[in-house]
Amino acid sequence: MANNESVDWQFSGSDEGKAASDASLSTYTSKLFALCDSNGKSILPPRGETSETSHTAERAVVKAVLFGTGNAYAPSIGLPAAKRAVANYLNKDLPQKLSADDVFMTVGCKQAIELAVDTLAKPNANILLPKPGYPSNLIRSIFKHLEVRNYEFLREKNYEIDFDSVRAAVDENTFAIFIINPHNPNGNTYSEAHLKQLALLARELGIMVVTDEVFRWSVFRSNPFVPMGKFSSIVPVVTLGSISKGWSVPGWRTGWIALHDLDGVFKSKNVLAAIKQFLDLNSKPPTVIQAAIPTILEKTSKVFFQKRQTFLREKTDFAYYKLMSIPSLTCYMIPEACTFLWTELNLSFFVDIEDDEDFCEKLAIEENLVLLPGIAFTLKNWVRHSIDMDTPTLEDAFDRLKSFCDRHSILGETPLKDVNGVNKAPLKDVNGVN
Amino acid sequence: MANNESVDWQFSGSDEGKAASDASLSTYTSKLFALCDSNGKSILPPRGETSETSHTAERAVVKAVLFGTGNAYAPSIGLPAAKRAVANYLNKDLPQKLSADDVFMTVGCKQAIELAVDTLAKPNANILLPKPGYPSNLIRSIFKHLEVRNYEFLREKNYEIDFDSVRAAVDENTFAIFIINPHNPNGNTYSEAHLKQLALLARELGIMVVTDEVFRWSVFRSNPFVPMGKFSSIVPVVTLGSISKGWSVPGWRTGWIALHDLDGVFKSKNVLAAIKQFLDLNSKPPTVIQAAIPTILEKTSKVFFQKRQTFLREKTDFAYYKLMSIPSLTCYMIPEACTFLWTELNLSFFVDIEDDEDFCEKLAIEENLVLLPGIAFTLKNWVRHSIDMDTPTLEDAFDRLKSFCDRHSILGETPLKDVNGVNKAPLKDVNGVN
Repeated sequence: MANNESVDWQFSGSDEGKAASDASLSTYTSKLFALCDSNGKSILPPRGETSETSHTAERAVVKAVLFGTGNAYAPSIGLPAAKRAVANYLNKDLPQKLSADDVFMTVGCKQAIELAVDTLAKPNANILLPKPGYPSNLIRSIFKHLEVRNYEFLREKNYEIDFDSVRAAVDENTFAIFIINPHNPNGNTYSEAHLKQLALLARELGIMVVTDEVFRWSVFRSNPFVPMGKFSSIVPVVTLGSISKGWSVPGWRTGWIALHDLDGVFKSKNVLAAIKQFLDLNSKPPTVIQAAIPTILEKTSKVFFQKRQTFLREKTDFAYYKLMSIPSLTCYMIPEACTFLWTELNLSFFVDIEDDEDFCEKLAIEENLVLLPGIAFTLKNWVRHSIDMDTPTLEDAFDRLKSFCDRHSILGETPLKDVNGVNKAPLKDVNGVN
Repeated sequence: MANNESVDWQFSGSDEGKAASDASLSTYTSKLFALCDSNGKSILPPRGETSETSHTAERAVVKAVLFGTGNAYAPSIGLPAAKRAVANYLNKDLPQKLSADDVFMTVGCKQAIELAVDTLAKPNANILLPKPGYPSNLIRSIFKHLEVRNYEFLREKNYEIDFDSVRAAVDENTFAIFIINPHNPNGNTYSEAHLKQLALLARELGIMVVTDEVFRWSVFRSNPFVPMGKFSSIVPVVTLGSISKGWSVPGWRTGWIALHDLDGVFKSKNVLAAIKQFLDLNSKPPTVIQAAIPTILEKTSKVFFQKRQTFLREKTDFAYYKLMSIPSLTCYMIPEACTFLWTELNLSFFVDIEDDEDFCEKLAIEENLVLLPGIAFTLKNWVRHSIDMDTPTLEDAFDRLKSFCDRHSILGETPLKDVNGVNKAPLKDVNGVN
């Protein structure tokens, strides 16, 4: 029977997901890690590790497991206690308060993004996404449902949103502008004044603002994080979040979407109903983590976040400093948020580097060091560096990077910093708070 | 600013998910529970409860939480240790062994079903699904991707698959037959001989067999559970499973899909690649549960399952016995698996019941008792009774049911059992093992 040749099997696999999958972060990451030499020096960054989460969060999940409070199916819109806890948590910064009914639990922030997209999907509709921003594969999936248009940033204004690019992209079929705040990979957070301007612009254009605030706990310089929901009396706002980044537990797969309604427009425009329908049909976040959400959000001490923020500030300081001796890479702004450095490749400095992908591949092969190419975030010839490592490891990573860049550069050795033509202020001036 | 009347908001919600959501089990369940009187007698079955899980499973998750082994993102195809553990577990009953590479982790068995469907989606393709079987909403979602055809069962042969109905439904565009074994809601498990016949038929027809074995641990009479994978030398088989039912932890949202390949046909037909692409783009199961899967599968004692099986056998015995005094409901076979009774409504017995939905609604209103209408599983005028309660509660539930049926029946009181024209053998004869 094992002989299969006589059977003409009628099935075959779909190739629907191929293009999007090929563009996914995990495809890029896997390909680059596979190029590293596992018998060579340590592969950086260490794969599959996260920093330690808070003991409060651990205890909350352990309690849910041992008391069995998260063993059953949760309602598809989320566990009531978790929805209430998220509303209360977000309300601390909001003049217009959310109720538990405005919050829905999702499988991480990723499903919250999908939910926002699928909820808006209509023939001919389009949405505005930041460039750079979401991973290319996510954008390709979104493309299947909605037309995607891009807006850009003003480098000279600390990567604020370029409102002219927003105006240029919007037409009568535009439904929403998505923002990422704090922004990954740019590494900045938006000021209250900037967000208010955005709210007014969106109101003028008749579109909602969807704000991805998953990095709100990873802000570590003088500019504070301001939630977009603060301006929900001007414009309808949808807030996306999760515990993944703030508590360093992406593997717990629990996030949320919150609707800051304005005079019932989400209800009357059928957005609320569409969200419930989507959640009814799609994967649910683990009840066992949802059951722990109230304690996680209410009881985690400020000290936990402060310690993490100090760590990230120190690492970005250090990485930015190390980068000053690598003229072929330009970081225009020291990050004030998130866990990355985002740098432009100065291709003219290299003798044999074609583009960002080529750069990252050769770097992995020669140095066992993995950086993600900008194209993975829709911006070619940039690279994203993880800085979430202890200082000796980070130093090792940047030493390898420098050695690689020197080796492939026309100068052949470390030039003066101002050779790359960009005015980088000394670290102490750009650093803000310390 | 709160005045919204002057703004012509351009967005509106999608109604893509409406029809499927309206047909979902949770929509039916919510509607019925909402009809109950929360100030009246206790509402049955108790909502959102599950039976206790194994201490081994609890400890395994607690360990993963406290050691942080499940905090990071897992690879999209699943954590290697979890994949290996599932392969090893399934291999115990299989002549052709699986490797870890043949297994992929999913968000419960539900995502595994979606994965199997999406992987096969092609223009004009169709698949065969059991009627009754999957919830109507799942079938409606599947309809969006693939044409669904139904096959039926032979009531007189203990609900074996009606192979004639399979032959009648298959054409050159049929890709797969999906089976549920043990079958929910029929409540039976297929014999080795029957599965082998199915394998031979599927081979003859050139289609794969997808087998949903989520209830494999809930088999409690003389017929043992036999996995379809046993016949993977005859036909390519895809096994779907999860810990949800066996360990009473649906809220942990962790399942799997396993490919029993036959001479590399899944690889050559692009099925393997399509699965990886799907997983790359979709929601992932919590790493923190995946990290516990090896211990859960390897270390849970037989006693845990035996205790649960004894409980379920006793409850089905008791419920079946109670049903004998309700002539308007017919259960053709005492369940040997799963956690339900599946009965046909004898509508001619009722004076004022229109159909299964009407029956369930009136029952909820009058008796605070929730049964699911057969239409929720695509078969009209049947009902599914949960029996997963302690005996006094179950007795209460069936007493209410009898009282309701008597009240709405032409006879007005309990008639002799043989009035309903179905030959129900006394309990001790149909019970099998004790």
